[in-house]
Amino acid sequence: MAIGTTYDFRVEPQDVDFTLRATITSMCNCVLNTAGVDAQSHGFGTDILMRSDRSWVLSRMALEFDILPEQYTKFTIRTWVNDCGRVLSVRNFVLSDDKGNVFGRVTTQWCMIDMVRRAPVDLSEVVELHRMYISDEPAPCERPHKVLTVNPQHTTEHRIVYSDIDFNRHVNTMRYIDMMLDILPIEMLAEHRPLRLDVHFIKESRYGHTLTVGYEQKGDVSLFGIRSDDGEAVCRASIEWR
Amino acid sequence: MAIGTTYDFRVEPQDVDFTLRATITSMCNCVLNTAGVDAQSHGFGTDILMRSDRSWVLSRMALEFDILPEQYTKFTIRTWVNDCGRVLSVRNFVLSDDKGNVFGRVTTQWCMIDMVRRAPVDLSEVVELHRMYISDEPAPCERPHKVLTVNPQHTTEHRIVYSDIDFNRHVNTMRYIDMMLDILPIEMLAEHRPLRLDVHFIKESRYGHTLTVGYEQKGDVSLFGIRSDDGEAVCRASIEWR
Repeated sequence: MAIGTTYDFRVEPQDVDFTLRATITSMCNCVLNTAGVDAQSHGFGTDILMRSDRSWVLSRMALEFDILPEQYTKFTIRTWVNDCGRVLSVRNFVLSDDKGNVFGRVTTQWCMIDMVRRAPVDLSEVVELHRMYISDEPAPCERPHKVLTVNPQHTTEHRIVYSDIDFNRHVNTMRYIDMMLDILPIEMLAEHRPLRLDVHFIKESRYGHTLTVGYEQKGDVSLFGIRSDDGEAVCRASIEWR
Repeated sequence: MAIGTTYDFRVEPQDVDFTLRATITSMCNCVLNTAGVDAQSHGFGTDILMRSDRSWVLSRMALEFDILPEQYTKFTIRTWVNDCGRVLSVRNFVLSDDKGNVFGRVTTQWCMIDMVRRAPVDLSEVVELHRMYISDEPAPCERPHKVLTVNPQHTTEHRIVYSDIDFNRHVNTMRYIDMMLDILPIEMLAEHRPLRLDVHFIKESRYGHTLTVGYEQKGDVSLFGIRSDDGEAVCRASIEWR
């Protein structure tokens, strides 16, 4: 049985870059907001989880965009959960324009953490309670790929400031995406080639730390690795330009 | 005759900081989006102006917040234009919670520029066409104060990257606000004192330039000055903590 909910969006002026098309970051933002709103409407959102000091944490995501929509374009995001094991829950998304043409496919993997113990929560109980919201519709694209080593040809440093952090004082997911796009030659972002972005969030980083963002171009693939002060990997990602 | 239009908002999770209240930047964003949507609905939005290579440019703004609303708070923004001379148009905003209590007052000054000649446009014609949308209701707070010299006690550098720029390849207004808040001691932002923010946009800054952000604390007033590579002032601002 296919289960899913569809949400309406429009590409607003603050969502576009100098090409007047939506940025990858603004699309990620819409996707993650949809995840939050949909989980909340089904009773397993962060608002409810916080009462027992638990929270969803995004572990990996893969996003495919055939095209990035132009300013003022109306689009929809349909989302569904299709898998939930003891550790990971998989939430999927399909982005379509107002003629129903699919232009984006996303799959995300989440774990739930106990914020006091800083440890993962067994999701079996959540599955039991919310089985009716788990669909058998497969993910619309391949699951997130592993990004292994990155041998940076370019690096930049980024001190984590107030505007980078979220309610947890951790760097906001969208800011990692920004840091990676910011190190690319800007012309690559103006070409608007179809793309696939894989992101693996490894470790949280906090206010006051300094991150090193590394970038390696390998043919049609851009690889990114973000490390914290202590040299530990914080986030790794790749963009395949198709 | 009081004329104005009211728009509905909610403080979303991406709008809050670690105190779980809306950031000043997210409130500015809502205010400026309201300006854009309202101008568009009345036929003098950037979408129409762009056809004749003209655009609204924000020159000065003053924002007063008694409190910053908590996550998930519903609020409204009422906006009206109450003055339009040959050079400047004044647009005002009142922010109210869902019980009708006013918690924010904003007044903004805009000029219109010819993007080919890079020169201001005489607004007399605009006034003639849109007189019915100009109200006699006064601004809800004092007009933007001038911020004169800033003698920085602290400075940071900021290279302008892709995620900072708007459709014009200029630094986005919200990013200037971020840069100023980011240099403040973070505890000041956690205190949530009532505040008044005055911002004066002096000159555009572009991709690839490096900005120097200066900050001076003078009693209960935080002063900010942003300069570009060539030493010219780009933006000056003050926050009065009340």
